[in-house]
Amino acid sequence: MNTRPRSNGRNMGTVSKALELLDYFTKSRPLIGLSDLARLADLNKATCFRLLTELAENGFVEQIGTGREYRLGPTVLRLAALREAQVPTREAAMPVLQALAQHTGETAHLSLLMADVLRPLAHAYSSAHATKVTLEDTESLPFHATSSGLAVLAFQPEAFCRVVLAQPLTQLTSTTETSPAGLRARIIEVRGLGYAESRGGYESDVHSMAVPLFDALGRCSGALAVAALGSRMSEAQRRLIRHALLQAGTEITTLWGGTLPADIATLWRLVA
Amino acid sequence: MNTRPRSNGRNMGTVSKALELLDYFTKSRPLIGLSDLARLADLNKATCFRLLTELAENGFVEQIGTGREYRLGPTVLRLAALREAQVPTREAAMPVLQALAQHTGETAHLSLLMADVLRPLAHAYSSAHATKVTLEDTESLPFHATSSGLAVLAFQPEAFCRVVLAQPLTQLTSTTETSPAGLRARIIEVRGLGYAESRGGYESDVHSMAVPLFDALGRCSGALAVAALGSRMSEAQRRLIRHALLQAGTEITTLWGGTLPADIATLWRLVA
Repeated sequence: MNTRPRSNGRNMGTVSKALELLDYFTKSRPLIGLSDLARLADLNKATCFRLLTELAENGFVEQIGTGREYRLGPTVLRLAALREAQVPTREAAMPVLQALAQHTGETAHLSLLMADVLRPLAHAYSSAHATKVTLEDTESLPFHATSSGLAVLAFQPEAFCRVVLAQPLTQLTSTTETSPAGLRARIIEVRGLGYAESRGGYESDVHSMAVPLFDALGRCSGALAVAALGSRMSEAQRRLIRHALLQAGTEITTLWGGTLPADIATLWRLVA
Repeated sequence: MNTRPRSNGRNMGTVSKALELLDYFTKSRPLIGLSDLARLADLNKATCFRLLTELAENGFVEQIGTGREYRLGPTVLRLAALREAQVPTREAAMPVLQALAQHTGETAHLSLLMADVLRPLAHAYSSAHATKVTLEDTESLPFHATSSGLAVLAFQPEAFCRVVLAQPLTQLTSTTETSPAGLRARIIEVRGLGYAESRGGYESDVHSMAVPLFDALGRCSGALAVAALGSRMSEAQRRLIRHALLQAGTEITTLWGGTLPADIATLWRLVA
């Protein structure tokens, strides 16, 4: 599943045809033979071979094994290291985060899953209101009590969820869900919606919404959230925040070279 | 400096022309304007613009700032993550390491700089002799006493060298160099040669030679070495090992998406 728009097949340039061949390599399909690739890309075999030869000469693909199948080549590693040096993850996301805060009038924040802890990476404030949710002192976001935590937890492997739910779950406010069964139900709900919501589960006067973020292998690697004062969260504002989150989540996923899983992309289109 | 051969300019396909534009982005030149890029690539501005537009549509480059300069785009991150998942660093190097051991008849090994320690990553044995240098129990390679260590140390920033040389340097054998002044002289020698050598500095009967390895930003990230029994190290064997190391070092650098600094590439061509 690709998150970026594909060129129009009819008027596609030779360069785009070659570059789009690279998109057929995925986590579940890392090796592709010439015939299969030609069929996938709807090209005749001779054209496909010619494009692959140019990609191979430049290290973008390489052939391996007795079947001479193609896989991605080492050049992409070199380019990625240069891109990362030029545009570190955090800086890449900042303009999107700032626009999200400005558009919603509330605090936007990004968190990344590091080992088994969800760490705040960056945040942006809106100047729309004198009161706002602040994050300076937050060292980690509890999975069970925040919308970011639930958004991430819902898209982790079962083993990860089991470990989190087996730990003591702190009652942070009167509405924090702390029963494993109740959290299981929340997780299922988040999976079905494609986003998570927390009404005062972390701090009683904060209402937050979050979407999961995905890496290049389609694994959920963090969350993007908007945290608002509960008193300002009208139904219209909820819709506005949800819509802005889905857009910004797609943008950051793309900026980070991630891939939105096909089912999430479908959900987000339906919800937005 | 590129380590892979460039296509012949005269018969270069459109795809290669576009892909080779990406090579002009380096650590020291991360942003390039259209006019500069056209001049660097020896293309007319209209052609260069057309190629860049196709690269941009596919996320390989993006334009930023008021100058609308180009930089590498997020797609390379996604492709690199897929490549790394399919061909992890260690596995990518194994065939080269095995060929190096077989060709030299001695033990070949790879080490990576992790924080401030040089850790063995992989090794390959030759079946040419009943006696060989083994590495199973080696947890780290001391910078001052091994050819790998010296090869890496010689290409680190001055601050790194200063810290290493200020630590207590263990006398492992009668020939281990432990004086900071003596090691400074060795480092200068390694920089001038482009490879390092240790005659019994780690274990008295082991003679090893090593070349530094470089990452995509041209930073020395590890070393590739051949460790032989000192008694087998004739002058002809030294030459053979040196030649094989320079070749294998270039291959692994490319496989890992690294970039050989221009001065090292020149040295290696002269020495080989």
